Amino acid sequence: MKIIGEKINGTLKKVRRAIEERDSTFIGELALSQVSAGADWLDINAGTAPDRETEDLLWLVECVQDVTDIPLCLDSANPEPLTAAAGIVARTPMINSISLEQQKIREILPVVREYRCDVIALAMDDGGIPASTEERLRIIHNLMEEMDKAGVTPDRIYLDPLVMGIATNTASGGIALETIRSAATLYEGVHFCAGLSNISFGLPQRSLINQVFLTLAIEAGLDTAILNPLDRELRGAILATELVLGRDRHCQRYTRASKNGLIGRVAVS
Amino acid sequence: MKIIGEKINGTLKKVRRAIEERDSTFIGELALSQVSAGADWLDINAGTAPDRETEDLLWLVECVQDVTDIPLCLDSANPEPLTAAAGIVARTPMINSISLEQQKIREILPVVREYRCDVIALAMDDGGIPASTEERLRIIHNLMEEMDKAGVTPDRIYLDPLVMGIATNTASGGIALETIRSAATLYEGVHFCAGLSNISFGLPQRSLINQVFLTLAIEAGLDTAILNPLDRELRGAILATELVLGRDRHCQRYTRASKNGLIGRVAVS
Repeated sequence: MKIIGEKINGTLKKVRRAIEERDSTFIGELALSQVSAGADWLDINAGTAPDRETEDLLWLVECVQDVTDIPLCLDSANPEPLTAAAGIVARTPMINSISLEQQKIREILPVVREYRCDVIALAMDDGGIPASTEERLRIIHNLMEEMDKAGVTPDRIYLDPLVMGIATNTASGGIALETIRSAATLYEGVHFCAGLSNISFGLPQRSLINQVFLTLAIEAGLDTAILNPLDRELRGAILATELVLGRDRHCQRYTRASKNGLIGRVAVS
Repeated sequence: MKIIGEKINGTLKKVRRAIEERDSTFIGELALSQVSAGADWLDINAGTAPDRETEDLLWLVECVQDVTDIPLCLDSANPEPLTAAAGIVARTPMINSISLEQQKIREILPVVREYRCDVIALAMDDGGIPASTEERLRIIHNLMEEMDKAGVTPDRIYLDPLVMGIATNTASGGIALETIRSAATLYEGVHFCAGLSNISFGLPQRSLINQVFLTLAIEAGLDTAILNPLDRELRGAILATELVLGRDRHCQRYTRASKNGLIGRVAVS
């Protein structure tokens, strides 16, 4: 199970301020803390201000690369900042994200091709996020064809089933799990990536729901997640799930993490 | 998901003492607290002293039936106490347990047949608990044949895959899950029941492992578990799993339990 650290995100207030004030110490610490906690990539999102997104993203990339050589996951909806950042990163980046939306195929997929990036591919098109598993699989099918034409091999693709809230549709969990399970049998070598927190939107004790969903998604085939690597509960869920599924030789990763205080619970009243 | 409350067990020190002192108040409270917490059956185990097991079991059954009419799960390795207790229970009991061991087929299965009990059937024979999924499925096949001959219909059978510790064999979790998954496709209408705590024996932060295993087992087909219904963490795992799997209409059971403080976490340092 690989982790994309989610904390360097310009839509979060503290990060937004650090970007505006060019507080490289704050960003550097945010990077290093996630790396020490075991992140495999760091997501870098400069926020949504179109007039300075490129400049801000380049500054963030430099801040992070000043303190660590972890690969970066460049997170933007726009080709300009992605192209600029892909040109200065030290290691092959991941692009977050493309989809079957025409703008993404036309403008973002060429960046993925040119810089031979890894890429997160969302199961949606210009009609939005489809309600059913079948529709998502149809979109994934077309997306895989587009990426194949662009020379993007399956091992570079991280399919995101798009996890929606259970509160508005109780089938949401099953749809995401079934999309992963089915696509895993259809596309050999492809990866699966998801954000977790949508699933529990509007419900109480959200971290419990997020953990249970993470456990079930790992069993279904999820091998990458965008999350806060400092979250001891999610780390615990990942390590315990891999342990129960027989993927932790001699139980070493679980017992070592437990001993080092990296997994555990936060009391919920 | 149905719960068999596990707390009235004469191998536990406090319960042993209550049985010896004929402390019906203690036993009555142990029964009522589990019923209020949502148990569907109460397991009744009188301990292992052969000279007084029948007498003790009958006393326990009477204590419990004085305060509640919940169905009972009569837990013994011996036919005498089971026959005596099956004769006095107010509602159809469950028998815990039979297996393919010759003594069980010869002595316990007739009790199940005579009193038309539900029954927990363990995937083991006189050779012990088999190491592989295939061997367990072979035993289950033979057990199902024996029960069919005795007229025990699948809806009365609770197959127990026998959950072993991960610490001694990292494949243990996968074997139990795969046994449930395969048997569920082979035997329509049959139930699955398991004890949870063995899985984490010898490992740190056991409740985390137990919860993750429970979540994966429910997805695999487990519909009954022997556990402490007062355990807020296990209750939380069950309700959140059913929620994520789309089995909680309007999210009502989960949100109500959360509101009533029935689910939650215990802080682990």
